Amino acid sequence: MSVLVRLAYDGTDFHGFARQPGQRTVQGELERVLTELYREPVLTRGASRTDAGVHARGQLVAFDEPGPIHIPIEGLGKVLPARLERDVVAWRVWSEGAPGLEPRFGNLGKHYRYRIRVARLRDPLTDRQEWHHEASLDLEAMRAAAARLIGEHDFGSFRAADCQARTTVRRLDAIEIRESSDDEARNVVVDVHGQAFLKYMVRIMVGTLVEAGRGRRAPGSVDELLRRPDRTRAGMTAPARGLTLMEVKWPAASGVSAAGTTRNEGSD
Amino acid sequence: MSVLVRLAYDGTDFHGFARQPGQRTVQGELERVLTELYREPVLTRGASRTDAGVHARGQLVAFDEPGPIHIPIEGLGKVLPARLERDVVAWRVWSEGAPGLEPRFGNLGKHYRYRIRVARLRDPLTDRQEWHHEASLDLEAMRAAAARLIGEHDFGSFRAADCQARTTVRRLDAIEIRESSDDEARNVVVDVHGQAFLKYMVRIMVGTLVEAGRGRRAPGSVDELLRRPDRTRAGMTAPARGLTLMEVKWPAASGVSAAGTTRNEGSD
Repeated sequence: MSVLVRLAYDGTDFHGFARQPGQRTVQGELERVLTELYREPVLTRGASRTDAGVHARGQLVAFDEPGPIHIPIEGLGKVLPARLERDVVAWRVWSEGAPGLEPRFGNLGKHYRYRIRVARLRDPLTDRQEWHHEASLDLEAMRAAAARLIGEHDFGSFRAADCQARTTVRRLDAIEIRESSDDEARNVVVDVHGQAFLKYMVRIMVGTLVEAGRGRRAPGSVDELLRRPDRTRAGMTAPARGLTLMEVKWPAASGVSAAGTTRNEGSD
Repeated sequence: MSVLVRLAYDGTDFHGFARQPGQRTVQGELERVLTELYREPVLTRGASRTDAGVHARGQLVAFDEPGPIHIPIEGLGKVLPARLERDVVAWRVWSEGAPGLEPRFGNLGKHYRYRIRVARLRDPLTDRQEWHHEASLDLEAMRAAAARLIGEHDFGSFRAADCQARTTVRRLDAIEIRESSDDEARNVVVDVHGQAFLKYMVRIMVGTLVEAGRGRRAPGSVDELLRRPDRTRAGMTAPARGLTLMEVKWPAASGVSAAGTTRNEGSD
């Protein structure tokens, strides 16, 4: 049996999800608490290695109890949120299947959200979770560029220089771009749904869409980026702060054994 | 002529608005930057002494240029946001009237917003700006209690033990309580509009309304609190983190001379 945890975190003060010696990371923090509880080293397996500064509302992490200590799942659902520090919360804890479940490979896709504030000045109350833009954005141009990214493509133009993935072919299911306005700002939200992502892929896509939105790139230029992988011709990497992993889609069976909460596993 | 500044801030890392020796405060931070710009001590006058941890989207501050340096208002509207630290933003800067304008006395009322999250667990991405409640709240009971607070009353039951105000009679214009729900939580918003407030008044009112919402107090018990001032019989002081000063209402003329922004002075 594997134990699964749905995590929400404010990524601002973490050096990303993946454990790194000497750095405060989400995985490191979770493993520190689990190791205290089980009194043996616990290694966890995450669905997404979110970058430093990226947030989550639906990160999915699995681990195996190291034995001999067994903690009933309901108890774990209570003690884990209480032990974690304030910027990470275990929203749901349940057990499922055999040991060794790998959220990274077993998931049915991911949903990322990128937030952009278009206004003359920043908003200090939402600033940790958005990219501030002073200049206006043409959403129709952004949508035209985004439409060209949908489907299975070679996304080699949209990955970090140090990305280790062997193949760069990925499938994007949908990109939705919406906005809401108030007196002070236009708030643009980019929702990206896909199967799997290369390092920085969402952020470079958003950076490229924003160039289209500012009229600095024709939407059709995206075709060439997909035809011929070349990082230098794609847009800038949008800042981490604007990105949130909203959901890791997981086979429905998991909804049944939910413990410690009354929420559904639904998308945010 | 007075210079007026509309400030937004995340109050989390401030010891409140009012300057205090040796503490990081919003007023202290603003005065530090203004004193650097004018190369002479600048003292500012705020509309509301928000408590430690309380946020603002519409704090209003006035000051007089100390001379001999004069900074054109448009320039100030650009340089001030750039010089302030990341958790405070000067959203609007304009000049008006004679020197010595006092936002605390010249305003037409204030609008505060209090946010409550009702869910089993906290949300790390909004946690700095809300009060987390595990138990359900009966909004109709809260509204019934709130209705009794509207109007001119002696709010002596609703002030901090160390509140210095000489009179405790204040006028509340409106309290609106709304909620929105998603899969994870009920989000309750309490909007309070009034002329002036005693120290902790909004937070003690919210603490009292929440007791009504949890069935621990009859809505009618508010009448007795207004009849006979007694802090010990009102509810707890709701945590600062949930409170935001949304707007200080200011006579309309100010909208005309807005500099450095295209926004209106409207409510949020």
